[in-house]
Amino acid sequence: MNAISKTLHVDLGDRSYPIHIGSGLLSQAELLRQHIKGQQVLVVTNETIAPLYLAKVMASLHGLQADSVVLPDGEAHKTLYTVNLIFDRLLELRHNRTTTLIALGGGVIGDMTGFAAACYQRGVNFIQIPTTLLSQVDSSVGGKTGVNHPRGKNMIGAFYQPQCVLIDTHTLASLPSRELSAGLAEVIKYGLLGDAEFLAWLEQNMPQLMSLEHAETVQAIYHSCHMKAQIVAADEREQGCRALLNLGHTFGHAIETEQGYGKWLHGEAVGAGMAMAADLSHRLGWLTRADVERVQHLLQRAGLPSWAPQDMTADAFMIHMKVDKKVTDGQLRLVLMRSLGDALVSSDFDAAKLQQTLLQGQAG
Amino acid sequence: MNAISKTLHVDLGDRSYPIHIGSGLLSQAELLRQHIKGQQVLVVTNETIAPLYLAKVMASLHGLQADSVVLPDGEAHKTLYTVNLIFDRLLELRHNRTTTLIALGGGVIGDMTGFAAACYQRGVNFIQIPTTLLSQVDSSVGGKTGVNHPRGKNMIGAFYQPQCVLIDTHTLASLPSRELSAGLAEVIKYGLLGDAEFLAWLEQNMPQLMSLEHAETVQAIYHSCHMKAQIVAADEREQGCRALLNLGHTFGHAIETEQGYGKWLHGEAVGAGMAMAADLSHRLGWLTRADVERVQHLLQRAGLPSWAPQDMTADAFMIHMKVDKKVTDGQLRLVLMRSLGDALVSSDFDAAKLQQTLLQGQAG
Repeated sequence: MNAISKTLHVDLGDRSYPIHIGSGLLSQAELLRQHIKGQQVLVVTNETIAPLYLAKVMASLHGLQADSVVLPDGEAHKTLYTVNLIFDRLLELRHNRTTTLIALGGGVIGDMTGFAAACYQRGVNFIQIPTTLLSQVDSSVGGKTGVNHPRGKNMIGAFYQPQCVLIDTHTLASLPSRELSAGLAEVIKYGLLGDAEFLAWLEQNMPQLMSLEHAETVQAIYHSCHMKAQIVAADEREQGCRALLNLGHTFGHAIETEQGYGKWLHGEAVGAGMAMAADLSHRLGWLTRADVERVQHLLQRAGLPSWAPQDMTADAFMIHMKVDKKVTDGQLRLVLMRSLGDALVSSDFDAAKLQQTLLQGQAG
Repeated sequence: MNAISKTLHVDLGDRSYPIHIGSGLLSQAELLRQHIKGQQVLVVTNETIAPLYLAKVMASLHGLQADSVVLPDGEAHKTLYTVNLIFDRLLELRHNRTTTLIALGGGVIGDMTGFAAACYQRGVNFIQIPTTLLSQVDSSVGGKTGVNHPRGKNMIGAFYQPQCVLIDTHTLASLPSRELSAGLAEVIKYGLLGDAEFLAWLEQNMPQLMSLEHAETVQAIYHSCHMKAQIVAADEREQGCRALLNLGHTFGHAIETEQGYGKWLHGEAVGAGMAMAADLSHRLGWLTRADVERVQHLLQRAGLPSWAPQDMTADAFMIHMKVDKKVTDGQLRLVLMRSLGDALVSSDFDAAKLQQTLLQGQAG
């Protein structure tokens, strides 16, 4: 086992917590145990992850009332109905307000478990063990929890922080390559939104990341979490700079909603969305055409789509983007780039240019 | 119109808010308008309240996108399913994160609307307009929001503060007398838990309160809110002294759960629960038998039950009390009284004495 492991501290005052990143961390029971305060634990996972890692996590919980609930897998199940299955289990097994919920799985499990923890008896402790690259670099940091509604993604939720995040890079070995790519979309996002040097490092190391080389993988996760943690610490409730983290997401959410949840992976939609944000930034005179192509080339090397589906119309985009959370009093706000590695939030752009971007690449 | 009106400021740092108490406040549009920040409002009310006050509130919202949703009435509908109807409406009408939810109704409407506001897009503004005495003196102060689960009351929720609370005592004129009594249970609670002088005032003024004399009603609401606000300000997240507010509630919740929600009103169950807490406090040597009778007499004068239903067994109590939120790691904690007007939280009591209290008054 490679001994490289790193710990990052997310600084949020009395809601601060550590992120442990390394290989084989799931075998280190003490790392998990030290963050459990009461005598009861509920591990929340899904049908795909349970056969792979549930037994290992349960083995770490010896001596506690350690229960588990196995949910159906997939974004389509990220609903209030599924969260209610967690409440059912907690109450059936008489978990009290000193219980700890452990999210074992990807972003969907993390979002639902965190939301359940935020709401169960008005708030209990929870721990994130993200098993996908996407959730490791993104949804395990920042305290955003919640579920989807048929009319919009993540419309119901809470800001709620975990006691700790445990990232075992071993779990990536079992990840389908399409999901690895989806995770890399969020890694690339950090380069594009605020760190041109990291972007260049990613361009150099993409083959190593695609083959899960250990040192590069830990480094990419650490750096992404570190950037996100800094942004979140500065703006926990998304009043200001945190909005930059939505680079690619407004376009991306529109793609996901139009296709129906689960057809495109979140990271794939964000990848396409970042290419569209780059294209609009070019039309506004901020990026060069070569910059746009550089973004698209890196997305392609990461196994990602570099544009929206051909059959998605500009009208379809506008309908979904209007209900997006980034709309403030009717004003559409987009994250764009002044240059690669320097993003900004803007509602003051030429609507005709946006229309050109939405029409770009559209079929016949 | 009687001109007496009072404003109380609940001090919670950046979550502080005012409580306006007076008669005819619903006709003062500016009082409501000044607390609405965005251009969208959703008034949440129920079938009973809508015909009485919805038009008046909507008239105050002229010029805004003012929508409403009318929910079924009653504690039986305080569920995740009903809260989801609020989300459906918000999304159908494209409310964004600058929207304000207004709770127009009793505690059930307030709890569900507050919870919906806490969760919609991870948190939007809300305003409470409580129309029952119970919600005016109790559930509109303290930030507790949430819904019931078939296995327990208020098991799912959030701590979330409103922008303001508007208490129009005119709305009490339309309240059934049984609900007025239920509200008086919570008023009496404040006397019992921490203010012997207020308890004596209540004993003197109970006839005036039962007939809704204006000055006494405003005074009772103001004093109750003031006591609760002080306790909540000292302990917003219920780590310490806030637990005193649960006087009568552990017994009371057991009664409500056993009977099925809605058969006994919450305040009625709390009334009976306070008599039981007094009885146990007497058995533990803290209250005299005369103290217990004084409590029961006041409850009776307020039109409240002064004991649990005769057919409820000690076993039934214990089953429900064990899943209560006040249970910490298997230890049952009860709010008891050292003397009238001086409550304490205790887990260190003789279980046999509790059993005696539970058996007391039981049928045959």
